[in-house]
Amino acid sequence: MRQITDISQLKEAIRQYQSEGKSIGFVPTMGFLHEGHLTLADKARQENDAVVMSVFVNPAQFGPNEDFEAYPRDIERDAVLAENAGVDILFTPDAHDMYSGKKNVTIHVERRTDVLCGRSREGHFDGVAIVLTKLFNLVKPTRAYFGLKDAQQVAVVDGLISDFFMDIELVAVDTVREEDGLAKSSRNVYLTAEERKEAPQLYRALQAGAELIRAGERDPEAVIKAVKEMIQSTSGMIDYVELYSYPELEPVNKMEGKLILAVAVAFSKSRLIDNIIIDIREMERI
Amino acid sequence: MRQITDISQLKEAIRQYQSEGKSIGFVPTMGFLHEGHLTLADKARQENDAVVMSVFVNPAQFGPNEDFEAYPRDIERDAVLAENAGVDILFTPDAHDMYSGKKNVTIHVERRTDVLCGRSREGHFDGVAIVLTKLFNLVKPTRAYFGLKDAQQVAVVDGLISDFFMDIELVAVDTVREEDGLAKSSRNVYLTAEERKEAPQLYRALQAGAELIRAGERDPEAVIKAVKEMIQSTSGMIDYVELYSYPELEPVNKMEGKLILAVAVAFSKSRLIDNIIIDIREMERI
Repeated sequence: MRQITDISQLKEAIRQYQSEGKSIGFVPTMGFLHEGHLTLADKARQENDAVVMSVFVNPAQFGPNEDFEAYPRDIERDAVLAENAGVDILFTPDAHDMYSGKKNVTIHVERRTDVLCGRSREGHFDGVAIVLTKLFNLVKPTRAYFGLKDAQQVAVVDGLISDFFMDIELVAVDTVREEDGLAKSSRNVYLTAEERKEAPQLYRALQAGAELIRAGERDPEAVIKAVKEMIQSTSGMIDYVELYSYPELEPVNKMEGKLILAVAVAFSKSRLIDNIIIDIREMERI
Repeated sequence: MRQITDISQLKEAIRQYQSEGKSIGFVPTMGFLHEGHLTLADKARQENDAVVMSVFVNPAQFGPNEDFEAYPRDIERDAVLAENAGVDILFTPDAHDMYSGKKNVTIHVERRTDVLCGRSREGHFDGVAIVLTKLFNLVKPTRAYFGLKDAQQVAVVDGLISDFFMDIELVAVDTVREEDGLAKSSRNVYLTAEERKEAPQLYRALQAGAELIRAGERDPEAVIKAVKEMIQSTSGMIDYVELYSYPELEPVNKMEGKLILAVAVAFSKSRLIDNIIIDIREMERI
């Protein structure tokens, strides 16, 4: 594995891949890698000739009240994990290279942002779209890998790629779960022992909601109510339980196509999110 | 020459060029081709293995008071001219393909826009940046060709390409002029015979301004005043005479680096623009 910080060195490496006709799988990250990232790298390894992972804590996607400085970083550990996962190039650019000079143009994400976690993170997805546009243009991936744990981010990237005709296949990878169903997250370690026992209830509630729809329930409010009731049996405080079309993230007037049922629940020291994507057409075919 | 309207057919053709390792020269236009466009195509032909020209009247770059519907169109004539200029692919997409579905993301050009002609065309360059981002991602040009007649557009495209690390060489092509120095424009035909005689004074005034700087004048206002005085000898109404750094288009505190001296003058039925780019370093080396 090569670790590259310099942008022109990265360009040269990508040119080399292209001249050899190699497909490129790309896993953009903010580092401090965990099993979710490594699952993305695994999948990229299986599906492409070369795998590029970026580690870049992107200042543009942090709000004024979000602590960019305190975001955890451990590039040496990341490099070991990336190498073990079969990454060929670990791209670790400097912020002053990624955002050099005065900003001439900016991207604003107009849709899919004012719901779920995006509602309380104004400008966050603009920052995500800007840095991904830069990274995509540098890495020129055949496929880009994102985890469905952050399904809203996947929806925003889908909008970015399709609006701008980017020639990239977006690969959305299923959330990695513990054996009891709890979505893996670096925040799970902040759960108390009692909370850790309760936490799988989030996914059970989502599954129960999906089951209701599968059984014929067509009232979104009834589904949301049932999910909320199941989560209320835990000590967590519900931030939201929402149901939208996917990836458009628009209110569900009629249950059809793809839907996302998503929750955010605050425990004493950790806020957990989870979601389930339901394909009504698939259900009806069964 | 192939004329392609369908986006997936274009993608297939571009894939073919790429697999053959061909360089692609791209000339984006709004059609109704004139000598300026053909000069760009000529240059693209000389410098690349394949030449793609687009003809697309982009609704996003027209303001509410600018007549998108009335913009002249003659695709059959354009096709003949493009073929004669050595264009390989004439891409003529439909607006509903270029802007299909709901708009998820948008681009805002934050700099280089609130001066010169951009001052009175709010949102114009956002529309230009959006359509060029789409076209660049579809055509994947090695080089993209723009005329310096619209030097502000070149500056905006330069900002777009550099901010987003687009792997495209921007080729800015000198303004084509009549023998008497008048910048070629489809609007010149609307000049009266008397105005046509006066119009070369614009370029003479710009040259005189450049000459003043060359001779050591370092006060921007003095240069602008001299240019204005020369243009006032015509019957045209001065819209602006401005001097900026180039391509940043920022006020000139100190005369150094590259500068642009630009004018817009309204005659009875035609508003003419022209500019001259002055490289102070080059001058000082002489």
